Amino acid sequence: MNYRIICRTLSLVLGIEAALMFLPAAVALIYHENLTVWAITILATASLAGVLALFKPRKRAIYAREGFVSVAISWVLMSAFGALPFRISREIPNFIDAMFETVSGFTTTGASILLDVEKMSHAMLFWRSLTHWIGGLGVLVFVLAVLPLANNNAMHIMRAEVPGPTVGKIVPRARQTARILYTIYLALTALETVLLLLGGMPLFDALIHAFGTAGTGGFSNRALSVGAYNSPYIEWVVGIFLVLFSINFNLYYFALCGAWKDALKDQELHLFGAIVLAATAIITLDAGRLFNGFFEAVRYAFFQVMSVLSTAGFATTDFNLWPEISRWVLVMLMFCGACAGSTGGGMKIGRVMLMGKAAHCEIRRLIRPRTVNRVMINGKAVDDDTIRGSLIFSFLYVLLLLVCTLVVSIDGFDMVTNFTASLSCLSNVGPGLGLVGPMGNFAMYSPLSKIVLTVAMLIGRLEVFPILILFSPSLWK
Amino acid sequence: MNYRIICRTLSLVLGIEAALMFLPAAVALIYHENLTVWAITILATASLAGVLALFKPRKRAIYAREGFVSVAISWVLMSAFGALPFRISREIPNFIDAMFETVSGFTTTGASILLDVEKMSHAMLFWRSLTHWIGGLGVLVFVLAVLPLANNNAMHIMRAEVPGPTVGKIVPRARQTARILYTIYLALTALETVLLLLGGMPLFDALIHAFGTAGTGGFSNRALSVGAYNSPYIEWVVGIFLVLFSINFNLYYFALCGAWKDALKDQELHLFGAIVLAATAIITLDAGRLFNGFFEAVRYAFFQVMSVLSTAGFATTDFNLWPEISRWVLVMLMFCGACAGSTGGGMKIGRVMLMGKAAHCEIRRLIRPRTVNRVMINGKAVDDDTIRGSLIFSFLYVLLLLVCTLVVSIDGFDMVTNFTASLSCLSNVGPGLGLVGPMGNFAMYSPLSKIVLTVAMLIGRLEVFPILILFSPSLWK
Repeated sequence: MNYRIICRTLSLVLGIEAALMFLPAAVALIYHENLTVWAITILATASLAGVLALFKPRKRAIYAREGFVSVAISWVLMSAFGALPFRISREIPNFIDAMFETVSGFTTTGASILLDVEKMSHAMLFWRSLTHWIGGLGVLVFVLAVLPLANNNAMHIMRAEVPGPTVGKIVPRARQTARILYTIYLALTALETVLLLLGGMPLFDALIHAFGTAGTGGFSNRALSVGAYNSPYIEWVVGIFLVLFSINFNLYYFALCGAWKDALKDQELHLFGAIVLAATAIITLDAGRLFNGFFEAVRYAFFQVMSVLSTAGFATTDFNLWPEISRWVLVMLMFCGACAGSTGGGMKIGRVMLMGKAAHCEIRRLIRPRTVNRVMINGKAVDDDTIRGSLIFSFLYVLLLLVCTLVVSIDGFDMVTNFTASLSCLSNVGPGLGLVGPMGNFAMYSPLSKIVLTVAMLIGRLEVFPILILFSPSLWK
Repeated sequence: MNYRIICRTLSLVLGIEAALMFLPAAVALIYHENLTVWAITILATASLAGVLALFKPRKRAIYAREGFVSVAISWVLMSAFGALPFRISREIPNFIDAMFETVSGFTTTGASILLDVEKMSHAMLFWRSLTHWIGGLGVLVFVLAVLPLANNNAMHIMRAEVPGPTVGKIVPRARQTARILYTIYLALTALETVLLLLGGMPLFDALIHAFGTAGTGGFSNRALSVGAYNSPYIEWVVGIFLVLFSINFNLYYFALCGAWKDALKDQELHLFGAIVLAATAIITLDAGRLFNGFFEAVRYAFFQVMSVLSTAGFATTDFNLWPEISRWVLVMLMFCGACAGSTGGGMKIGRVMLMGKAAHCEIRRLIRPRTVNRVMINGKAVDDDTIRGSLIFSFLYVLLLLVCTLVVSIDGFDMVTNFTASLSCLSNVGPGLGLVGPMGNFAMYSPLSKIVLTVAMLIGRLEVFPILILFSPSLWK
């Protein structure tokens, strides 16, 4: 294994993180909050980045193995240093809690151990939400976009960090692709911030909620989340931007290039639309009597469907109190998640569609064994490796979900809480049902459970393999 | 499609069923119970068998397609006629309920809608438990064993009915294989009956519980199930026979042929042993304080682990009252199920092992893409079709579980009840947790939910594809 190239990657990631920490430091300056915390953290992060930069890579080639390991270790280190401000300022006194909150931020989960979010300082809240924005599209994709990292094999890094069964190279070079993705990301975030300001939201809140929407993270600076503003306009803006950030970013590029029709013909997009409509309709019918009239019911149903399907996890109402069908629809959406190549989590709609088509193919194969049956997506045949990879991914996903639920059951909370807490962390949603519902939080879990759920968030965000690979003995041989 | 060979198969299955109904009729005679019910049912079943026999097959070849369709329709018809005695005698006045109970019997689920089992007549209880014994190893396998059905392609029928990712032909001819399997099955059932008689159980009860154990079904004639006898000896006999019926029957044949060592080296057997030990240990530690001392705790834990893992579903205690870890261990066992080629249900340990090995292979492939990585079981490479088939099976299993839970949520019961009811039916276990726990039953569900759960039991017993294939438009073209 090329350890030196891994050190180089880690150095770049920590360097970028140190640079980005100047933003919350500026917020601290504006609101006259503690600056020492940020000075110490930036110094510590930059120092390690400097030390790691001393290992100059002899060969610049990156293979799949190095890509996975770089991404996995980057995310762990980045979270550990990202947790420092919370710990040093004592706004989150316990390091396990601080790590949980930071990993929840970077992985865009949005699960929280904070009992009173409105007591936190502005700089901490800003940093907490900024981690969503950084983690959403992937920090190594950002590194690729702005810094010279590797020559041609950088796709291995994108493949390990960008969600979905396959990574579509928009343009032949990885760096160019990364720049295009980040430009779209930045533009949409800026647009949402402006629209939220127009709805009367203060600038600070608008940035926080735009970061939470863009990364599909879901941290808010208000205890009642988006519901606190009591504004249908704001709910619709956030809801519609959750749709926009749940879609494969490649489609925006195609659309910008004039290939509108191709983008609109995307099969994953169609399935995504169908799921949103069906889930909203079912919940409107099932939970409608809890609201004042049809249109209010549609608004709440659509917002919560998008919030869970995009895996953001914002709340406008306590959906834990909804009837059983609606609650189970939300659990199913938690499994599914957003589109591949978006900032959302979960198993990804594209992967579910791929597996559904593979199952259909399998049935046709049983009926007529001698005819050729290939899985087709958007008119192209999908290769067997991608299908097998997706199926194995989903097997491991369910297995890890069952094991995670088993471990957190040690704390003795009820089964719905444990199961949805595990699913919500693994799918990077944030809230679950029961005690971890939208009006609850994860503070009551024991340190062991918090560590397990933290690992689950990382496993979910990096789509299982980069983290599992670290535990494979043959990697270290 | 060769419709005539399907008619021929259905005719044979119904003929066998009519013949087997003379057994409960004999019980009715002994206990001076209603004989008319049995006369009507036998006449009706035999008549349809006779009508179907009029369609003489022109070609005797059976392909995968005909195998799957024959098996699926056989099971539905067999259950419909099997439900008649309950309905006609009005011991189960509602036909949907009668169908639920009969499908639960044939699929060896053991889920019940009976509010007071001890009020039923002897003949009905006997028939109810006999369906377990008939369904356990497969009724078409029985047909193959005793009647001339098809020439060489009969393996397609065994493949559709015998559980597991692959069907091991013990000997080259299907009929010979079927006879060997049924001889082992009969011998073990007889042995258990004798051992239960030695423990002081009445002959009637001994037969009922031997049928329930052999088919891993779990129907009892006592409301408190095996716990009613309050006898550690009986619990150990049933527990150990549940182990014996959870093992791949092929291993017994190998052992009888003198290949003891090969049988003991079977990797699925080792994993089965490890799961039983681990689950028993965890539950003994977690729920131990509910019992009088260590040995009693081990006894209860072992019995319940074997009862759920074998998917029989007998109870010696109300495990719904156990602490959360133990309850979740049982849920995990419900997913897993028994060994391939046994009478147990669930996803099968062999399939879980196969998928685990495939996942390990995938990770090694990511680390070293250029080396050859093949999935090996018992020293032999597994072909890609079997791996893909298992992975797609497990994807559909989880998808159907989620959809089934969604539909039964309409009745408004709690999530744990709905989820474990669906899982328990799909895995052919019987009891779940919550309201469908070992001391509860399925009577409270609406007719729609009962129909959905009935279909889930059939889907689970026939391992998804034979039932799903019926809904494929390309089958009927």
